[in-house]
Amino acid sequence: MSVRIGVIGVGMIGQDHIRRVTQVLTGGSVTAVNDVDAARAGQVAAGLPGAVTHRSAQDLIADGNVDAVLVASWGPAHEEQVVAAIAAGKPVFCEKPLAPSSDACQRIMDAEMAAGRRLVQVGFMRRYDAGYRAMKATLDDGGIGAPLLMHCAHRNPSVPDYGFTTDMIISDSAVHEMDIVRWLFGEEIVAASVLTPRRTGRAPDGMQDPLILLLEMASGVLVDDELFLNAHYGYDVRGEIVGETGTVALADISEVTVRTGHQHAGRVPVDWRDRFIRAYDAELQDWLNAVAAGTSAGPTVWDGFAAAAVTDAALAALRTGQRTPVSLPERPEFYAKAT
Amino acid sequence: MSVRIGVIGVGMIGQDHIRRVTQVLTGGSVTAVNDVDAARAGQVAAGLPGAVTHRSAQDLIADGNVDAVLVASWGPAHEEQVVAAIAAGKPVFCEKPLAPSSDACQRIMDAEMAAGRRLVQVGFMRRYDAGYRAMKATLDDGGIGAPLLMHCAHRNPSVPDYGFTTDMIISDSAVHEMDIVRWLFGEEIVAASVLTPRRTGRAPDGMQDPLILLLEMASGVLVDDELFLNAHYGYDVRGEIVGETGTVALADISEVTVRTGHQHAGRVPVDWRDRFIRAYDAELQDWLNAVAAGTSAGPTVWDGFAAAAVTDAALAALRTGQRTPVSLPERPEFYAKAT
Amino acid sequence: MSVRIGVIGVGMIGQDHIRRVTQVLTGGSVTAVNDVDAARAGQVAAGLPGAVTHRSAQDLIADGNVDAVLVASWGPAHEEQVVAAIAAGKPVFCEKPLAPSSDACQRIMDAEMAAGRRLVQVGFMRRYDAGYRAMKATLDDGGIGAPLLMHCAHRNPSVPDYGFTTDMIISDSAVHEMDIVRWLFGEEIVAASVLTPRRTGRAPDGMQDPLILLLEMASGVLVDDELFLNAHYGYDVRGEIVGETGTVALADISEVTVRTGHQHAGRVPVDWRDRFIRAYDAELQDWLNAVAAGTSAGPTVWDGFAAAAVTDAALAALRTGQRTPVSLPERPEFYAKAT
Amino acid sequence: MSVRIGVIGVGMIGQDHIRRVTQVLTGGSVTAVNDVDAARAGQVAAGLPGAVTHRSAQDLIADGNVDAVLVASWGPAHEEQVVAAIAAGKPVFCEKPLAPSSDACQRIMDAEMAAGRRLVQVGFMRRYDAGYRAMKATLDDGGIGAPLLMHCAHRNPSVPDYGFTTDMIISDSAVHEMDIVRWLFGEEIVAASVLTPRRTGRAPDGMQDPLILLLEMASGVLVDDELFLNAHYGYDVRGEIVGETGTVALADISEVTVRTGHQHAGRVPVDWRDRFIRAYDAELQDWLNAVAAGTSAGPTVWDGFAAAAVTDAALAALRTGQRTPVSLPERPEFYAKAT
Repeated sequence: MSVRIGVIGVGMIGQDHIRRVTQVLTGGSVTAVNDVDAARAGQVAAGLPGAVTHRSAQDLIADGNVDAVLVASWGPAHEEQVVAAIAAGKPVFCEKPLAPSSDACQRIMDAEMAAGRRLVQVGFMRRYDAGYRAMKATLDDGGIGAPLLMHCAHRNPSVPDYGFTTDMIISDSAVHEMDIVRWLFGEEIVAASVLTPRRTGRAPDGMQDPLILLLEMASGVLVDDELFLNAHYGYDVRGEIVGETGTVALADISEVTVRTGHQHAGRVPVDWRDRFIRAYDAELQDWLNAVAAGTSAGPTVWDGFAAAAVTDAALAALRTGQRTPVSLPERPEFYAKAT
Repeated sequence: MSVRIGVIGVGMIGQDHIRRVTQVLTGGSVTAVNDVDAARAGQVAAGLPGAVTHRSAQDLIADGNVDAVLVASWGPAHEEQVVAAIAAGKPVFCEKPLAPSSDACQRIMDAEMAAGRRLVQVGFMRRYDAGYRAMKATLDDGGIGAPLLMHCAHRNPSVPDYGFTTDMIISDSAVHEMDIVRWLFGEEIVAASVLTPRRTGRAPDGMQDPLILLLEMASGVLVDDELFLNAHYGYDVRGEIVGETGTVALADISEVTVRTGHQHAGRVPVDWRDRFIRAYDAELQDWLNAVAAGTSAGPTVWDGFAAAAVTDAALAALRTGQRTPVSLPERPEFYAKAT
Repeated sequence: MSVRIGVIGVGMIGQDHIRRVTQVLTGGSVTAVNDVDAARAGQVAAGLPGAVTHRSAQDLIADGNVDAVLVASWGPAHEEQVVAAIAAGKPVFCEKPLAPSSDACQRIMDAEMAAGRRLVQVGFMRRYDAGYRAMKATLDDGGIGAPLLMHCAHRNPSVPDYGFTTDMIISDSAVHEMDIVRWLFGEEIVAASVLTPRRTGRAPDGMQDPLILLLEMASGVLVDDELFLNAHYGYDVRGEIVGETGTVALADISEVTVRTGHQHAGRVPVDWRDRFIRAYDAELQDWLNAVAAGTSAGPTVWDGFAAAAVTDAALAALRTGQRTPVSLPERPEFYAKAT
Repeated sequence: MSVRIGVIGVGMIGQDHIRRVTQVLTGGSVTAVNDVDAARAGQVAAGLPGAVTHRSAQDLIADGNVDAVLVASWGPAHEEQVVAAIAAGKPVFCEKPLAPSSDACQRIMDAEMAAGRRLVQVGFMRRYDAGYRAMKATLDDGGIGAPLLMHCAHRNPSVPDYGFTTDMIISDSAVHEMDIVRWLFGEEIVAASVLTPRRTGRAPDGMQDPLILLLEMASGVLVDDELFLNAHYGYDVRGEIVGETGTVALADISEVTVRTGHQHAGRVPVDWRDRFIRAYDAELQDWLNAVAAGTSAGPTVWDGFAAAAVTDAALAALRTGQRTPVSLPERPEFYAKAT
């Protein structure tokens, strides 16, 4: 009954998903792994009773003991792997971004539509976060009236030493807000602008940090998103939707309040894992449940495509300093109903 | 590899644990069920592929396809069932209270010590709550200095219509604080007193609600516990430890803050499930992991026994209006190290 | 038009009231001062244009340029001074405690009743605090239903080096809660008990700190009051009234929230002045307004008397370890209507 | 010793200042009033013992019993009145805006510089708010490192029925943030942009509400300011400065927390008076103290001029949809030191 999963890419995030499937979630097991680093694949497999290593992603996808594929390789490899899994008729969970360009996303979309059923779930885990779900519930219940604007902040304590660029603030970090606002408001983003506040001295040379990303929704709802990757004090993701009759905001999350030294204080998460670990769990459990039930769930290839299109616009806006419309075709009927 | 579990008692709490094992947690399966209501047992088993029904708890315990036993029957049946599981050398998870009297708890303790290894985990799930764990971590790290006193509140919106008595506030509700303060402070409770504030008109006839329970720890730490079972506004469990240099308190838990109608507001949980569902999950996962590893974890029979002894003292204090010492022998070496 | 005030006792609190009258409030001026330390009186007067120094409190009270008297001398002197002011028909503001014994308070009460009109306001400033006023408004509006119990905490960072005793926790600190609960609930305290939690190592030798004071209101409302005078981390006064349908609590007061070092934090006041400065201002302005209008306002001699009677009971409870009834006569018609 | 004040303009705000001087603050009295509505002036004077009514602002300014002038007339009249007071060598408190155009402000500035000493305080009362002062103290103490950006929100429950326009959101509401960010960061605003989110259906016809105003400081600090004049739920002014190592934000202000109906809630102010009453008190007391001491304090004519220049730029930005530089000359040495 257990879903037998083949994992492509067993770096940090791939290993974390394996831990999740084997030690936290119900209904799944890892039966095969593949990695461009064969030695790493072998080491990981050694810790998984009954799991085999495959030389290529294609071999793993073809393995009869693999019911479903989890793609955690690097972005440029996603397209080929996801399309191959679709061709094999196997459900795929693909880490974000779905693919590095909207063209590549388009090709995955074409492949899935040709296959005739939704096989792909994209790893936008914030949709599974209890905070965002409560926000959406409040909004959908009419608790704050029609939405007008939203304030977001996405703060990381620091970036890795090697080569984190200004572009990556858009493509790797802001992509989470791009998806979550599409999901919260149930509509597409039509334009993007980027503002450049005073630069922190704590950013690596050449990196413009923080940024303000402005996203315009089809209805006119305006989203401002502070992106601050070297915020030093902690990992802090915030959001407040302003509606016609009220607002709803993500609450601070702290298990306890401590009173010492003339302060009362709660804690701020240390990193994304600390903040979103339950969302990752819920996301993958939802996938396992859908695979077992023969259905699909969660963010679709269309969502991955739309995020790529908004990323393209935002990167252009960053380069030109101009408001940039998002180029997005009509949503195919195939993806009509959001899950 | 999966732990095969036999569940004795498939009422509300038993069914909830079955759901947990089969739909949420990893590493367990339910292979057998038993209930005094045979029809109910049959219905529950029908929803569990591969599970059988046993006419008696003894038959279930003896079943070769049962690796470990989960006791969720009513309290008076616990002793016989837990002792039988111990005799069969099978690990047991027993819902609280371990047994209705400290004498019965003593007999279970004798049986386990005779068996020579710890086989029983008692269902004091608050030890697995993220809030209490953060409190304990703050305390143990010296973050507030030596503890001096603690304020607790245990508020339920209302009690069931049938026969909830004043005594049950002590035996069913306060037992959670009795256990958690023993665990937080790592010491025993030596005396109990009960105060009776003005009675709410919302309590059933004859029920004195709220109560204030005072617990004295061996070190002199004093705990006051407001128990208010008809608090109407929500399910609210609170605690603040006051130490020599600071305090640590359970934080309010709300995913979002809503601003409407001249208020900013967070939510209060609706019931114990809402508040403690993750603690129940973590508790049972810890048990499954320990059973699979051939070890033991969580609250022990000694903890169940100590809670029963404090309950006896608190009930006497309620009856007499007097401070009542807790009668507790030395902790056996067998239970020396808290887990 | 300005009320001409004579101040008896120009130590720390007296000087603070003088600063308040001359630099903060409207409608008053200080025209005379007296102090047992004549040199100190002279220095203070030197800073007050037009103010004279009197050798005795009696001379000050008799001064034709003194419309009203502010008594900020030490407690044992209050009775004589307040009675003399009453005899002179001059309004008096008397710092708490009204007098060190309930007998002395009784004599002041007799004098005022003999004079035939209320001339004395006692310095229980918490009644003017915005937090307690909002609590009372919520309670009086039915916002939480009938009150059942109240939790209080009164934490001071530390006590002065010289001679602060356990008794003074009751007579100097707890007296504020004694008055405020009488005012909040509009009824008398009928009994007091004192509990002694584990002692902090930060208290001076021989001082039992913290204490828990239990106060029983006439209606059965039960108040527990944590008194912790060496709480180290700050000055923190807290209170939560639990009613039949909800609770109302003093909120933390912090102008800003700071996010640094993995924390979000607000400040805790440093001392009573920081916490209650606006209440002191409002209290004395109310007195000035009442004097100017020829009326009376604020806590009365009866309130001072009742606080003394409860203090007596609480001190006896501390000595004996027993619940001690408060000995209080019927409230005279003269004091029938609380202001 | 008391400062004798002549009040020009006794509408709502003028009367509120009179109440403040006569019933709340120390050191001032109102000796003369003037209003374009002579009947209203007469009524107000009738309630002020010893106050006279003047037919013209000029007569009031010339009155020998007027030491200082408080200008609370409508904006277009400010220039003539303030300049006349300067000519008379009398200190002036002028409500914001100093004058409706930056040209008019320039003329006032010229007059004051010609007079050779600062005589004018402009009514930007937020500088006296405890929240903004604590923010500035945290910033100036290096508590959050160098400032990089700031988020503001300015929410009003609704606008008056008659003729509130989109332009007035900039000129009447946003002007407060224009001044406060200049004061917080100690530097000028160099450019403004205006964004138009989805419009609320609760705004009067023709009014674009909400707006997002973007202000660029000379150092590159970027300020986004949500202006929402029909926010319905309450009066809510918020701000968070993001620095290199942390952030500081205005805290919610609520005296109590109420737990009812599955919520814990604090209150949101009902209007600007409720929110800023203490800032108004402190502002005017500071003026009275400065006048009495023969010095000057608070926001200067330069501050009023700079706010007018930023308002001009923001209005242009609203009209054109373009980022608009602020046209501001060098600050004269005369105004070199901010007070």
